[in-house]
Amino acid sequence: MVEMTQTNHDNIQKIINALDSQKARLFREEYLELHIYEQAQIFRDLNEQQRARVYRYLKPEEVGDMFDAMDQDPEEVIHYLEEMTMAYAAAVINGMYTDNAVDVLAYAKKEDLLGYLRLLPAKTAAEIKRMLHYEDKTAGSIMSTEYVAINGNQTLASAMEAIKVAAKTAETIYYVYVIDESEKLVGVVTLRDMLRNDDQAMVKDVMNMQVMAVKVDDDQKDVAQTIRDYNFLAIPVTDYNHKLIGIINVDDIIDVIDEESVEDYSGLAGVDLEQTTENPWQAAFKRLPWLVTLLILGMSTTTLISHYEELVSQASILAVFISSITGTAGNAGTQSLATAVRRLAFKDEDKKNIWQLLLTELITGIILGIITGFVIFVIVGFWKHNFVLGFVIGFAMMCAIVVANLAGAFIPMFMDKIGVDPAVASGPFISTLSDLTSVLIYFSIARIFLSFFVGQ
Amino acid sequence: MVEMTQTNHDNIQKIINALDSQKARLFREEYLELHIYEQAQIFRDLNEQQRARVYRYLKPEEVGDMFDAMDQDPEEVIHYLEEMTMAYAAAVINGMYTDNAVDVLAYAKKEDLLGYLRLLPAKTAAEIKRMLHYEDKTAGSIMSTEYVAINGNQTLASAMEAIKVAAKTAETIYYVYVIDESEKLVGVVTLRDMLRNDDQAMVKDVMNMQVMAVKVDDDQKDVAQTIRDYNFLAIPVTDYNHKLIGIINVDDIIDVIDEESVEDYSGLAGVDLEQTTENPWQAAFKRLPWLVTLLILGMSTTTLISHYEELVSQASILAVFISSITGTAGNAGTQSLATAVRRLAFKDEDKKNIWQLLLTELITGIILGIITGFVIFVIVGFWKHNFVLGFVIGFAMMCAIVVANLAGAFIPMFMDKIGVDPAVASGPFISTLSDLTSVLIYFSIARIFLSFFVGQ
Repeated sequence: MVEMTQTNHDNIQKIINALDSQKARLFREEYLELHIYEQAQIFRDLNEQQRARVYRYLKPEEVGDMFDAMDQDPEEVIHYLEEMTMAYAAAVINGMYTDNAVDVLAYAKKEDLLGYLRLLPAKTAAEIKRMLHYEDKTAGSIMSTEYVAINGNQTLASAMEAIKVAAKTAETIYYVYVIDESEKLVGVVTLRDMLRNDDQAMVKDVMNMQVMAVKVDDDQKDVAQTIRDYNFLAIPVTDYNHKLIGIINVDDIIDVIDEESVEDYSGLAGVDLEQTTENPWQAAFKRLPWLVTLLILGMSTTTLISHYEELVSQASILAVFISSITGTAGNAGTQSLATAVRRLAFKDEDKKNIWQLLLTELITGIILGIITGFVIFVIVGFWKHNFVLGFVIGFAMMCAIVVANLAGAFIPMFMDKIGVDPAVASGPFISTLSDLTSVLIYFSIARIFLSFFVGQ
Repeated sequence: MVEMTQTNHDNIQKIINALDSQKARLFREEYLELHIYEQAQIFRDLNEQQRARVYRYLKPEEVGDMFDAMDQDPEEVIHYLEEMTMAYAAAVINGMYTDNAVDVLAYAKKEDLLGYLRLLPAKTAAEIKRMLHYEDKTAGSIMSTEYVAINGNQTLASAMEAIKVAAKTAETIYYVYVIDESEKLVGVVTLRDMLRNDDQAMVKDVMNMQVMAVKVDDDQKDVAQTIRDYNFLAIPVTDYNHKLIGIINVDDIIDVIDEESVEDYSGLAGVDLEQTTENPWQAAFKRLPWLVTLLILGMSTTTLISHYEELVSQASILAVFISSITGTAGNAGTQSLATAVRRLAFKDEDKKNIWQLLLTELITGIILGIITGFVIFVIVGFWKHNFVLGFVIGFAMMCAIVVANLAGAFIPMFMDKIGVDPAVASGPFISTLSDLTSVLIYFSIARIFLSFFVGQ
């Protein structure tokens, strides 16, 4: 396990005791010594009375720092802000990094939001208002406005002085962006570059002019992929006039990568995995819509089978293999779906060649279908001593796998094209489609060969 | 899309032309101007002859830098190393960061590895040999040995001089670790701290003594979680004597987070998503084992249904609902499995209270079962004008959902306990178990009420 030289149980007890016995100075000493993540962990376990004391003992900017560590749970922070006086809450918000503050305020009641904005410094309020308008999951919605931007016409020594001042508030000082007089992004210097070069060199001579930037409305997935490919610690965000308006830090990107893959994963399983709960009622009602939707979609298959009831009553052996065929086709569809979703999420260049990909999946499906179909042909043939029955089941399974495989690849690409998130909605369509096709193929073939297994 | 001020199509063409016309100087000028990630992208598209020229035109350390950008595909790099002379390849390896070099060498043929190690500087060879022994997916296997460690008994000014020297080779210089005379980790100073404080202050007075570290055999998942929670750019790795032996950077952690969630996702779909391929034969043979395993496991359900064939021949209506019941139970099991896998992957503290969690899933399953069962009871009752049949199907579905839900939660926890990765192996067990239970329950109940729907 991770080694912590701090926050053992004794420390936490000491902090709680200081709160309960109202020893403000002792509380501040012990509490502020901790990393903000640990402060947040302790804070979460306090009761309302204890939290009220924390608001009295800590400066709003200290509470703001701690709330920065709760960046994965903005809804929780809103709840705490509502416990404070309006003025204190506004000061806390002012103490947070803008990107985190915006995340939190997106959950605020409208009248509260207006109240906070009125109490915040005009510049911060304007920035927050602007950022609240950026669409969710774009670069604009996750960027931070606390960056260091300097002019290229100065020495490294003088730039270093500017950085020292910025070191107090900026989210990162390790990348310094160079802008021209119209605030256009023209270069980047890393702090490492500055240390490696002579103090008296000009910024514009040292800077890297091939600076990579993202546009404010770029998808956060693409931003994440770029930062990951280039191993950047941050990337600048520009508007459509190439003006620098923010940066995105690697720690925000880690959250994006996790969020995106959890989403893909959630889509496959039909349950929102982002927020797990211990309450069985909540858990059940989160899973119910999907379960019932699939059940009702599945009724189309049931209805189809029902049409063939007459056939089943003549050869009940047919009933035995329905779930085996639909199940295997469903599994093949899930494999092809997962591959397609992953490809759409992380390999943009592949999007172009849709027909090539569909052809690949078609051939893959045929190979899978032939082999799997042959396996079941042999199994059923020997088991039931009836190779005609084996052939019917094997052939139906082969066709069903080919269809499921193609659907698994095509439907997510189609959804992506029309702007629906393929991870969320593809699953039920594919399983329903593959169930329907496999049942239809199965019984159509079975009818032809009926005389071979009536009474089996 | 991401804005690139560089590498447009013209540039790439210019580089390729320079290679083809053997203009070494022009090639170097244009190529080395690019970010290493872009260099790698171009390099990947070259043919063997062009690559041979690159090895002639570039210094081995320049090729090593470029290979650092291929850290997601170590197997590819091995292939390139085999094209070079032994001495050049060793020099290339020497130019890479140790963690990346080790990743690559893990795929080398044994005699090649011994050859490279003989040709590398003794210190690097020893380091690589040591790191090759760390178990996969531990902190040791992903750590880098290029870090900056200093003594606390000096001024910030003199420490800054040491950092300037290190800036040339260290992977990060933004965190500087402070060690005592026995190389034990005693503190950390960020470059930001150094800039904010007076030059003449002593390192030991400025450093943060509450430095967080991970142990060399910690699981990479836990390391990732810590870096994510604390928003660190790097974390130091220590051995069991608290000696500093490496650091893990945030960019390595991004790969870990993605790798871990892709693994979870792969497990659910039964296909290795880490390496997608365009070759249908390869794709098919990657998916076949799972598909055939599930098919054969599924034969147990088929065999069970086969036992009830007599019952089906009396009341063929029963056959119509088999797939609806097994399908719904399977969906419920997948939801509960996905939730459990996610919880095991990211919330260590929850592992403790297994009984509490199982109780929660039991109650969730009962709620889901009652509601879903009631829905199908109503549908079937009105559709087939037979509420007894509706009751049988609804009750069977309810029982099947409860069992599938419990299995979905219990099996991954059990696998985790016995040290098997729950994401990889749980799926087929759960679907087979829930299929078997639902068929068994369904036909057992149906037999009791048989007189109500014979001849339906």
